[in-house]
Amino acid sequence: MDGRNLTLLTDLYQLTMMQGYYLQAEKQPMAVFDLFHRRNPYGSAFAIAAGLDLAIDYILNLRFSPEDMQYLESLNIFQAEFLDYLANFHFSGDIKAVPEGSIILPNEPILQVIAPICEAQLVETALLNIINHQSLIATKAARVKWAAGEDEVMEFGLRRAQGPDAGFYGARACVIAGCSSTSNLLAGKEFNIPVKGTHAHSWIMTFPSEKEAFRTYANLYPNSCILLVDTYNTLKSGVPNAIAVFDEMKAAGKMPTFYGIRLDSGDLSYLSKKARKMLDEAGYPDAIISASSDLDEYLISDLKLQGAKISLWGVGTNLITAKENPSFGGVYKLSAIEENGEFIPKIKLSDNIEKVTNPGVKKILRVYDKETGKMKADLLALADEQYDLNDELELFDPSDTWKRMNLEGGSYELREMLVPIFEKGQLVYERPDVFTIKAYCDREKETIWEESKRLHFPQKLYMDLSLPLYNLKKQLIEEAIRL
Amino acid sequence: MDGRNLTLLTDLYQLTMMQGYYLQAEKQPMAVFDLFHRRNPYGSAFAIAAGLDLAIDYILNLRFSPEDMQYLESLNIFQAEFLDYLANFHFSGDIKAVPEGSIILPNEPILQVIAPICEAQLVETALLNIINHQSLIATKAARVKWAAGEDEVMEFGLRRAQGPDAGFYGARACVIAGCSSTSNLLAGKEFNIPVKGTHAHSWIMTFPSEKEAFRTYANLYPNSCILLVDTYNTLKSGVPNAIAVFDEMKAAGKMPTFYGIRLDSGDLSYLSKKARKMLDEAGYPDAIISASSDLDEYLISDLKLQGAKISLWGVGTNLITAKENPSFGGVYKLSAIEENGEFIPKIKLSDNIEKVTNPGVKKILRVYDKETGKMKADLLALADEQYDLNDELELFDPSDTWKRMNLEGGSYELREMLVPIFEKGQLVYERPDVFTIKAYCDREKETIWEESKRLHFPQKLYMDLSLPLYNLKKQLIEEAIRL
Repeated sequence: MDGRNLTLLTDLYQLTMMQGYYLQAEKQPMAVFDLFHRRNPYGSAFAIAAGLDLAIDYILNLRFSPEDMQYLESLNIFQAEFLDYLANFHFSGDIKAVPEGSIILPNEPILQVIAPICEAQLVETALLNIINHQSLIATKAARVKWAAGEDEVMEFGLRRAQGPDAGFYGARACVIAGCSSTSNLLAGKEFNIPVKGTHAHSWIMTFPSEKEAFRTYANLYPNSCILLVDTYNTLKSGVPNAIAVFDEMKAAGKMPTFYGIRLDSGDLSYLSKKARKMLDEAGYPDAIISASSDLDEYLISDLKLQGAKISLWGVGTNLITAKENPSFGGVYKLSAIEENGEFIPKIKLSDNIEKVTNPGVKKILRVYDKETGKMKADLLALADEQYDLNDELELFDPSDTWKRMNLEGGSYELREMLVPIFEKGQLVYERPDVFTIKAYCDREKETIWEESKRLHFPQKLYMDLSLPLYNLKKQLIEEAIRL
Repeated sequence: MDGRNLTLLTDLYQLTMMQGYYLQAEKQPMAVFDLFHRRNPYGSAFAIAAGLDLAIDYILNLRFSPEDMQYLESLNIFQAEFLDYLANFHFSGDIKAVPEGSIILPNEPILQVIAPICEAQLVETALLNIINHQSLIATKAARVKWAAGEDEVMEFGLRRAQGPDAGFYGARACVIAGCSSTSNLLAGKEFNIPVKGTHAHSWIMTFPSEKEAFRTYANLYPNSCILLVDTYNTLKSGVPNAIAVFDEMKAAGKMPTFYGIRLDSGDLSYLSKKARKMLDEAGYPDAIISASSDLDEYLISDLKLQGAKISLWGVGTNLITAKENPSFGGVYKLSAIEENGEFIPKIKLSDNIEKVTNPGVKKILRVYDKETGKMKADLLALADEQYDLNDELELFDPSDTWKRMNLEGGSYELREMLVPIFEKGQLVYERPDVFTIKAYCDREKETIWEESKRLHFPQKLYMDLSLPLYNLKKQLIEEAIRL
């Protein structure tokens, strides 16, 4: 689907600022920007990073077309010299990012741009748009899948997504972090992910009878035959008619291999238990009962608690729009700027202490317990800090510094989360396919305890600052206050 | 931006059903589908229809590409005969719709498709996706604009929108129904709508001082100079520095024509009143005070109530994601199907009486009071019903039929809301530009009383059924129950 040129998908103020930077300096300084979120959506203890793949396409296709240039000229706010620069614009900087499917915590960079300031500024809006959207949906999908346990979850939300891209990239984000399939054919084709779906109520309504509609469908699709049973009356008409058609298929020696029913209204717990009993008694214990109808992680979790006999979940609107919390809130903040060939760390103050940014060129070190393989915490450190795994590691809470944790040398592992994506404008990252990312995300989820995955008030995961970064931040705050 | 082929932007089940319809009949029957919403979002008394323009592009570009065909073949569920049909697929049906920018009520068709059933089925998902998204955002924008009164509202949400399309088409929907401009350059270029924006905190942070940052900006953009004053301290640093720079500009004889400040954090009511006083006392009573920072219709309304001195509002996240209610909930339901050359009305039952569909080929007649020009109600009628404006018109509530309103002949006007868009696959509609649609939407909003626009518990607008439609619905319900 892409290869679209989204160069103008940015805010006007990026270009007004760029012109300012361009015109006032002989040579643009290099700037470092961090893209990070401040709060996990839905009260989760973590988020799942997604969107890097489209972000890469976006960077690769950055180029002002002749029509773009004509438009910018027509605005009458840009000078010829700057327009010439734009006409030859391409991205020449470095980008690091955490791989898609990674667990990520607030205030640590999901993505880091080191580039001449004009380039770093231009890409802010689109990178935020892409990463915000896909991380939002992936994080929701992980919750839905957690609620569904071993059951499969299908993504069904295209018709309610916020536009074509939201459906298309949303389906991909869902598959990365939790769903096994989608109803969305375009996503199926482009991302090579399984597509699922059977028929709608309108199919039933165009036939003289429900049974004839079922029969026609079963004959057409004997290998994947899930019948929608709620058009008229689920237990009095839908399920008995489905059983009658399964009987016909069996008698004809054409018993479907993957078959069952879909519930799409009514009390899914009650109906699924009744339907299970009817199907079992008719000799169809392997008939699947699937359900759809305003599902989300809370309802699935509740239905399972009540013993609903559902093993396949079609989740639409609430997943694809992240209903409860439809924005991720990622921001993109300057953390350092070049002066005389050196990066000078920068900080943004705020009355709200949690909104004060972390200055400098940084790296994320994820600390794992060697024995369990579980994540202990993240350590946000300056890029040039070195750690020896044989040394004791002391972690402390940057707000409540008396909260400390000491890890014995040899008992932990460290992993650098930010990996190089672009170097001097060249793509240096091998882009994994969606199922590789999905498998990686599954492993990521295994590195945290169930306590941090529950839907309500999960156990917090900690992101601590290294001592050098903590000291730098303190020093910059004091300097800024003195100004 | 478009011209994209979104033919596969549909649910797999549309194609499995299509194959069923295609293989079982010599000639596909014509089917009538209504696209409608069941509930207005945000507790509004009405919604604003939007998305038709992209829906038209979508229909015009409907064509399975060779890669699409290859993909469909690879799924191994479609027969050669049906694949041949798809390879030559184009839309040959009729579409009617209410014009973009129209006020629309629940359960009346925003869009109506009359086409061979395979075609009508294929287009369901994408039409829902497009109309749902854009109507959702337009309806929100109308609320935000209502709260802002005579003040201008700028759309600032691209970085938080659910993907590129959500930002792009969302900006358009915002302008149709309430905003005067957007920060989104791509939307500005493609839809010819004004773009606005100045600079970010990072601009300030790259300069040795706030004043130098302001000065540089003012020199560059003397014709549109809104300075962001909250990077360090709004009242102690930002506003005084802005005034100092305005003084310098004035002294140099380069006083900006459109100038002022932007508040982006803190208590916007308090800060705007203090800033207004400082600007007035410094001799800048015409300096604009604009604000952004998690705004929505509720906060704007509240701030105005407290006398905030803000006249330009930048609204982002909450508008572009429809935060409170991020899905529109439109559905697409079969209302009639051809049998022996005649349309047989169809109904979909539900335990929930409000989910029972309205059968038959219908039209929407909007009833206006002749004297005031205000909307009295909508009358959903069968397409072939005739009304004489000289006759008395009796309207009754379809749920509480004792609630009646009698309009004297000559005292009312009727307007048919659904207009032809496609006839036999040919586009017959002249597509208005965004500002024509915006002006139309403004007129639409004038046809309803303020009581129906307020944010909380607005006065309901009524959609009634004509007597023939009411009787048909009753009859079909009784027949279905008897089955």
